[in-house]
Amino acid sequence: MSNNLLKGKRGVIFGALDNKSIAWKVAEKCHEEGASIVLTNAPVAMRFGHINTLAEKIGAEIIPADATNLDELENLFSGAQEIMGGKLDFVLHSIGMSVNVRKKKPYNDLNYDWMMKSLDVSAISFHKVMQTLWKLDAINDWGSILALTYMAAQRTFPEYSEMAEAKSMLESFARSFGYHFGREKKVRVNTISQSPTPTTAGSGVKGFSEFFSFADKMSPLGNATADECADYCVMMFSDFTKKVTMQNLFHDGGFSNMGLSHAVLDSFEK
Amino acid sequence: MSNNLLKGKRGVIFGALDNKSIAWKVAEKCHEEGASIVLTNAPVAMRFGHINTLAEKIGAEIIPADATNLDELENLFSGAQEIMGGKLDFVLHSIGMSVNVRKKKPYNDLNYDWMMKSLDVSAISFHKVMQTLWKLDAINDWGSILALTYMAAQRTFPEYSEMAEAKSMLESFARSFGYHFGREKKVRVNTISQSPTPTTAGSGVKGFSEFFSFADKMSPLGNATADECADYCVMMFSDFTKKVTMQNLFHDGGFSNMGLSHAVLDSFEK
Amino acid sequence: MSNNLLKGKRGVIFGALDNKSIAWKVAEKCHEEGASIVLTNAPVAMRFGHINTLAEKIGAEIIPADATNLDELENLFSGAQEIMGGKLDFVLHSIGMSVNVRKKKPYNDLNYDWMMKSLDVSAISFHKVMQTLWKLDAINDWGSILALTYMAAQRTFPEYSEMAEAKSMLESFARSFGYHFGREKKVRVNTISQSPTPTTAGSGVKGFSEFFSFADKMSPLGNATADECADYCVMMFSDFTKKVTMQNLFHDGGFSNMGLSHAVLDSFEK
Amino acid sequence: MSNNLLKGKRGVIFGALDNKSIAWKVAEKCHEEGASIVLTNAPVAMRFGHINTLAEKIGAEIIPADATNLDELENLFSGAQEIMGGKLDFVLHSIGMSVNVRKKKPYNDLNYDWMMKSLDVSAISFHKVMQTLWKLDAINDWGSILALTYMAAQRTFPEYSEMAEAKSMLESFARSFGYHFGREKKVRVNTISQSPTPTTAGSGVKGFSEFFSFADKMSPLGNATADECADYCVMMFSDFTKKVTMQNLFHDGGFSNMGLSHAVLDSFEK
Repeated sequence: MSNNLLKGKRGVIFGALDNKSIAWKVAEKCHEEGASIVLTNAPVAMRFGHINTLAEKIGAEIIPADATNLDELENLFSGAQEIMGGKLDFVLHSIGMSVNVRKKKPYNDLNYDWMMKSLDVSAISFHKVMQTLWKLDAINDWGSILALTYMAAQRTFPEYSEMAEAKSMLESFARSFGYHFGREKKVRVNTISQSPTPTTAGSGVKGFSEFFSFADKMSPLGNATADECADYCVMMFSDFTKKVTMQNLFHDGGFSNMGLSHAVLDSFEK
Repeated sequence: MSNNLLKGKRGVIFGALDNKSIAWKVAEKCHEEGASIVLTNAPVAMRFGHINTLAEKIGAEIIPADATNLDELENLFSGAQEIMGGKLDFVLHSIGMSVNVRKKKPYNDLNYDWMMKSLDVSAISFHKVMQTLWKLDAINDWGSILALTYMAAQRTFPEYSEMAEAKSMLESFARSFGYHFGREKKVRVNTISQSPTPTTAGSGVKGFSEFFSFADKMSPLGNATADECADYCVMMFSDFTKKVTMQNLFHDGGFSNMGLSHAVLDSFEK
Repeated sequence: MSNNLLKGKRGVIFGALDNKSIAWKVAEKCHEEGASIVLTNAPVAMRFGHINTLAEKIGAEIIPADATNLDELENLFSGAQEIMGGKLDFVLHSIGMSVNVRKKKPYNDLNYDWMMKSLDVSAISFHKVMQTLWKLDAINDWGSILALTYMAAQRTFPEYSEMAEAKSMLESFARSFGYHFGREKKVRVNTISQSPTPTTAGSGVKGFSEFFSFADKMSPLGNATADECADYCVMMFSDFTKKVTMQNLFHDGGFSNMGLSHAVLDSFEK
Repeated sequence: MSNNLLKGKRGVIFGALDNKSIAWKVAEKCHEEGASIVLTNAPVAMRFGHINTLAEKIGAEIIPADATNLDELENLFSGAQEIMGGKLDFVLHSIGMSVNVRKKKPYNDLNYDWMMKSLDVSAISFHKVMQTLWKLDAINDWGSILALTYMAAQRTFPEYSEMAEAKSMLESFARSFGYHFGREKKVRVNTISQSPTPTTAGSGVKGFSEFFSFADKMSPLGNATADECADYCVMMFSDFTKKVTMQNLFHDGGFSNMGLSHAVLDSFEK
């Protein structure tokens, strides 16, 4: 059942690896709501994932692009406009990767070259995406740009390591570029701060399942799922949220404003 | 054109005075999106306003209720369920009034009986609404409760006076009761922090037009209108935002995260 | 050993019940740092407590005052100036009481008369204190007004009940009145948001010891003690913090910016 | 007149360029309060500045160090301990530089190599400082690490450009590393978010004087000066703030919690 919320809109979605990916769900839901989509991912991520299955399912084309590479981004956004026959209405940035976490370096022994790589992939890529969209004038008035983030940008979750800094920067880019996009292009830029989600990438973090369970017990509505996140993204792409910009929106079942829940205290006391 | 976002849902809307009211626009938009509505307002506000015009237009019934009076609230929610044939899915609280502002008392010479009255009408009424809904078990699973607020809850706008405290309390009620409603009823509770809006009530505040203009120039997308606020409320009542709870959501064209805009600086320098 | 941080300064301290009270420690520490002090408490609290012992120890006089009563506040601040021979330099508000918590009313069944009483005692009293200071012109340029608060103003701790709203309002009063005091009197107004502290009042809250332990394990430096809070208050009264105003300052061993600590996760997993 | 707040303590201070620098004032004030100091700056900054004058005045030695270079940081902290005869008690990070701002690149046309350089100098250097301190075990229990930041980390000031992201990251490093330092070393880590300050570096930003004046008129106590910031830093290094950690502390005359002041509105209306 569709509400036609994105009828006639054109979007580019980064980061659909497999059917556990939030970006995958967003693409499906946007398609359902009437949007045309171009999918993209880094060539290396495409090899591991199943993006072709998704593309077929929703009738989307794929343009591979390393989001840290300006030429590939230009190629992506030019191509997407050509394929879909007009300027874009929305873009989803769902990209994150920490080399230091992968290599299991503790936070007091980080490798700074790896940190630079993590920041480039996870955060600076968002500025590069927006700068390319701006230069190509590739996005329509009242378009919507969105990135997925996590609350480690505000509070410390030790295992999240340098991704805390990457997400802080990502959210700052949304505010900073949101000003310029709002003022000159009537385009809004926001981030959605999502519950821990058992994606293929997310689950890899050390202690993920305990952490997931803690967040679930702390949140009065429980953790938000990838499907529910996709709904929220659709809403942020739709014309119902035109004046929401430069915001970081918590989509987390209430976790962010909890101090202590009965369920956590019960588990804690045992 | 409708997206049928609220098809089959039942709601109660407080605070529609006249066609400049945000609540008025919300009622119209909810109707357009397929909801059944019961309108309510304090008897005194009904005399000054034009709520009957709205009720006719959208085929809604009106049940008058003083939102500070528990008996009247019980009568309202019982009646609304009876009229619409089932439990409620959403409620909008759009009520605010400061006696000290009306009486032009400066912030360092407030009358505390009047303050109590202002807090009761503007904030405690929200707890009373929720407590009554809870006791009557009057709201469906995955229902959505919303109140309108203003950023004076976070930052000082001197002319807003004791309404700053009322809004702080209102937002706190959303978090506190949101926990209980989330955990036991799967109901979400949020506040929308709206741009200054030239409603009949809002415009009465001293210096409103300069203040409106300042906010408009500070916000990259300009101030959000009452119509746009209604769109956002619809989204918060729809099934697209099921896991958003205990949040204060800024709907303000970016104002809340601005430090200084070029437009303000230009006006300032002159 | 004294650093003479408050040499020659005069202060009024509310809320010293017994030697577990934060206000008690603040009074001792301020005395040690060279200040003259007048102690005050509600007559009823004085009967239960041991304020005379403190007064003797630090050579302070006591002026009883119900902080919700404007006449008694006027008497207090007039008397304090007379006794100490000049305008005040600092004031500590450390008052909080919830009737609904005492009477064990659940949050979805609150008594609103009791809520009004709780708000008056715990929050509005702070406005009354400041309004009286203002009207009497009882505080020196670069004076410092401080109130103690708790993080329930920002996040939900269910057992804290209506005190969440009281503290939200209290912090809002600090911002609102801080604007006027700053602009016209060069006086700063702040709140300190303290770790859970095993005072006689605090310990009474249901489940306090589990909650204390949770906060302690979440905070990298552990919970802040009453003694440490007194140190922080001294700093905020001293001339080293002249331009800090309208702030809510977390004094909590890091709790407020934690998402999840190893110590909590370890206890949680068991 | 000294309060001996830092008697017997040893500190390292980064970033004293000339006598307008905040770091310069901090060094003077720390010396006055009884601390031993080692000064440091990047070789290039030393050539432009007058750090020798300061060193002579307060009897401090200078160890040049590029704060992005791990070897030089190790040399600095080893040398500082040797010179002062023991582990450190406090460190001030006061370093910031944006290549894109210097080169006048607009925010929608940034050079990413320059951004990397800016981030490394302004933010990652703070992690490098802390990681080096950790590895050398160079800081005493209950030591205090502090960095200076600006509110552009939370809200958009367009001319501040990529420094918004650098400061967001800097503040995130304070939280993240603050957790580890707190838990294992009893060391606190905080940032002070200071009013715009007419330092040699700060004044160079485009439109600084209008911006300074706007902030001054918005702040009830006016902008905080470099001298006052030095006072606040002393307090954060002293034993009066032992349990304050992972915080971003606004030192800004109230600016951060202002929505709109009369003074700004008056200038705005003209």
